[in-house]
Amino acid sequence: GALGGLGLGLWRRQQAAMAASEKDEDEEEEEKLRQRFMAAPVSGLRELRRRRRELRSRMELLIMETQGEVCRALAALDPGASFAVDTWERKEGGGGISCVLQDGEVFEKAGVNVSVVFGLLSEEAARQMRSRGKSLKAKDGKLPFCAMGVSSVIHPKNPHVPTMHFNYRYFEIEEADGTKQWWFGGGTDLTPTYLNEEDAVHFHKTLKEACDKHDLKLYPKYKKWCDDYFYIKHRGERRGIGGIFFDDVDSPSKEEVFQFVKSCAKAVVPCYIPIVKRHCHDSFTPEEKLWQQLRRGRYVEFNLVYDRGTKFGLLTPGSRIESILMSLPLTARWEYMHSPPESSKEAEILEVLRNPKDWVH
Amino acid sequence: GALGGLGLGLWRRQQAAMAASEKDEDEEEEEKLRQRFMAAPVSGLRELRRRRRELRSRMELLIMETQGEVCRALAALDPGASFAVDTWERKEGGGGISCVLQDGEVFEKAGVNVSVVFGLLSEEAARQMRSRGKSLKAKDGKLPFCAMGVSSVIHPKNPHVPTMHFNYRYFEIEEADGTKQWWFGGGTDLTPTYLNEEDAVHFHKTLKEACDKHDLKLYPKYKKWCDDYFYIKHRGERRGIGGIFFDDVDSPSKEEVFQFVKSCAKAVVPCYIPIVKRHCHDSFTPEEKLWQQLRRGRYVEFNLVYDRGTKFGLLTPGSRIESILMSLPLTARWEYMHSPPESSKEAEILEVLRNPKDWVH
Repeated sequence: GALGGLGLGLWRRQQAAMAASEKDEDEEEEEKLRQRFMAAPVSGLRELRRRRRELRSRMELLIMETQGEVCRALAALDPGASFAVDTWERKEGGGGISCVLQDGEVFEKAGVNVSVVFGLLSEEAARQMRSRGKSLKAKDGKLPFCAMGVSSVIHPKNPHVPTMHFNYRYFEIEEADGTKQWWFGGGTDLTPTYLNEEDAVHFHKTLKEACDKHDLKLYPKYKKWCDDYFYIKHRGERRGIGGIFFDDVDSPSKEEVFQFVKSCAKAVVPCYIPIVKRHCHDSFTPEEKLWQQLRRGRYVEFNLVYDRGTKFGLLTPGSRIESILMSLPLTARWEYMHSPPESSKEAEILEVLRNPKDWVH
Repeated sequence: GALGGLGLGLWRRQQAAMAASEKDEDEEEEEKLRQRFMAAPVSGLRELRRRRRELRSRMELLIMETQGEVCRALAALDPGASFAVDTWERKEGGGGISCVLQDGEVFEKAGVNVSVVFGLLSEEAARQMRSRGKSLKAKDGKLPFCAMGVSSVIHPKNPHVPTMHFNYRYFEIEEADGTKQWWFGGGTDLTPTYLNEEDAVHFHKTLKEACDKHDLKLYPKYKKWCDDYFYIKHRGERRGIGGIFFDDVDSPSKEEVFQFVKSCAKAVVPCYIPIVKRHCHDSFTPEEKLWQQLRRGRYVEFNLVYDRGTKFGLLTPGSRIESILMSLPLTARWEYMHSPPESSKEAEILEVLRNPKDWVH
C-alpha cells in the first residue's frame, strides 16, 4: 500500500508538472489517457504513441483502460476504501501494475492486475504457454516473446454478491525465421454463493451480446469452454455458474480477434456492477456467511490445483507471486463432510454447479 | 458425524453382544484390541489373526493402534469435544476409518485417518506411487497392490500451539513373476505460528531418540529430507520447522524398517502432546490469531500445490476426497503483500522457515 501510494503520488506530481507546461495535441491526448489509467503504462506512453499502429500497443492501452474502468467502478461502490497501486518490474523484461482494495465495506478483496512481460522463452516454456501445444521453431533454443494481460478477481463481503473473475491476454512469439505467432485468450465468469436467476441471466446475456456483435457462434462455444475449464474434478463441481472462456484464439484475423476481445473487456463493468449494486446492502445471516466461506474454500481448491494460469505463474522463475495469488480470497473455510440439506438454498446452487444450465438462448 | 456415530454405535453393540458370549483366549486378545481401536479394522480382526505373521497384518494393527492412541490423547485435552468416526469402503477394494474432531475448545480441526486399500494398479500409477520410480513388471499391464497408512493433521485454535502432521504408510506390489516389492514411507513434522525454541528442541529430540534406537544415521538424513520436502518453492519458505520425513524405504530388511516405523509412530504422542498441554491455555491477541490465519493460508498452499500425497489422492479415481482434504485447516487467510515488521515475532519464525535450523545435535 505505502509503496504503491508513494509511486502513484510521485507520478501524479510529475503529471501535474507536465500539465502546467505547454502541450501539443499528442500531449493532450496523452494527458487524457493518463487520467484514465491507474499508473504509467509499462511500455511508457511515448513509446506506445511511437508504435501506435502495432497491435501490442493497442492491446496494452486496452488493458490499461480496462484496469482503470473497473477500478473506478468498484471504488465508486465502496467509498470508504481505495485501491492501493503497486507498480513492479520484472528483472527479465517488462513489469506490471497491481491494484488491490482489501477489507472494504463492500469488497473483501478486489484485485485488478496488469502485466506486460517480454524476453526469451525456452522451447519447453513456449509449448506450455500454448494450450494446444503447436510446435515453434527456435533460434538457438530461445524464442523472443511478449505476453500481456489484465486479470482480476473480486471477492465481495456480502454473500448475496457473487465473486467475479476476468482475464484478457495477448501473446506474441517470434520464430527462428522471423514469423510471428500470436494469439489471444480470456474470459469473464461469475461465482455466486447463492443462486439468483435474474443475476445469472443478466450476466450471461451481457456477455452474449458482446460476443454476438462479432459472430453468433462465439457465445455458445465459449460458454461451454468456460463450464469445462472451471471444473473442480475431485468435487464434481464447477467453480461457479460460468460465463465465457477462450484460449489460443488466432483466427479469423488479428484485427477481428482484437475487436472481439475489446468488446468482452468493455462488457466487464456492465455485466457485473449492476449485480453488486442490487445486492450489496442485502441483509444476511451468519449461516449464509458460513456457506460463503466454504465456497471460498472451493475457489482456493480450483485456483491452486487446476488453474493453468496460476500453476504456470507459480512455476515460472521471476514471476510476481503476490500478483498471482491476489486471486485468493481474504478468508476461506474447510469443514469435514459438510453437505447442505436437501432442497435448501445451498443445495440449489450446488445442483447448478454440478449440472451447468443455459441461461440465455 | 451422524453416519460415523451410527456405524460406531452399531459396532459397539455387536462388541457388547460378543463380550457377553463365551470367549477363548484369542477372543480375549481381540477384545483388548477392540477397546483400543476407533472402529473395526478394514481387514477384520479375525482375518488379521489368521494371517498374524504377515507384515501387512502387523502394520494394519500398528496403524489402528496409533489412530486410537492419538485420538484418545487429543480428546483428553479437549473434554467438550469428541471425535466423529466415519468408516468408508472403497469400491475397488479396501476402505478406511476417518476420525475428525472439529471446532473444539482446544482444536480447530483434528483429523486422524486410517486407510487400507488394495486391488490392481496400472503400470503408470504404480510408477507414480514409487517416488524414485523403480520399474515394475506387470502381468497383462496390471499389478496387484496393497497400500495402507495412518495420517493426521492437528490444527489447534490457540496460535501458541503448533499444527502437527504425521503419516506412516506401507506399500506392497506384486510383479508378474510373483516377487513382491514393498516399501515404507512416513514422517512427523511441526508447523508453529510462533517460534518457541524449547518446543522445537523437545519435538526434534523426541524424534531423534526414536530414530537413534535403530541407526544413528537416520535422524540427520530424514530431518534434512523433511526440510527439503515441505518446501513452498514460490514463497522460498518451508511449511514449518520440520521433523522427519522418508519415502521408498526398503532396506535393511522388512522387519527392521517395520520396527523403525513402529518407534516413530509411538513417538507421535510424546513429541506433540506435552507441547499442546504447555500452551493450550496461553493468552493471545487478535493480531496473533491473524498471523496464525495467514500461516494457515501457507499450509493450504503447500498441501494443494506441492504435497505428493494430496495430489496423488485428488487424481486417483475412487479416492475419498473428504479424507484427503481433512488436512486443510478450518479457516485460512490471504492478505495481499503482507510482510511482518523487522525483528518482530512474526519475522523470527519466517527466518527459521527460510533457513532451517538444527535443533538437536
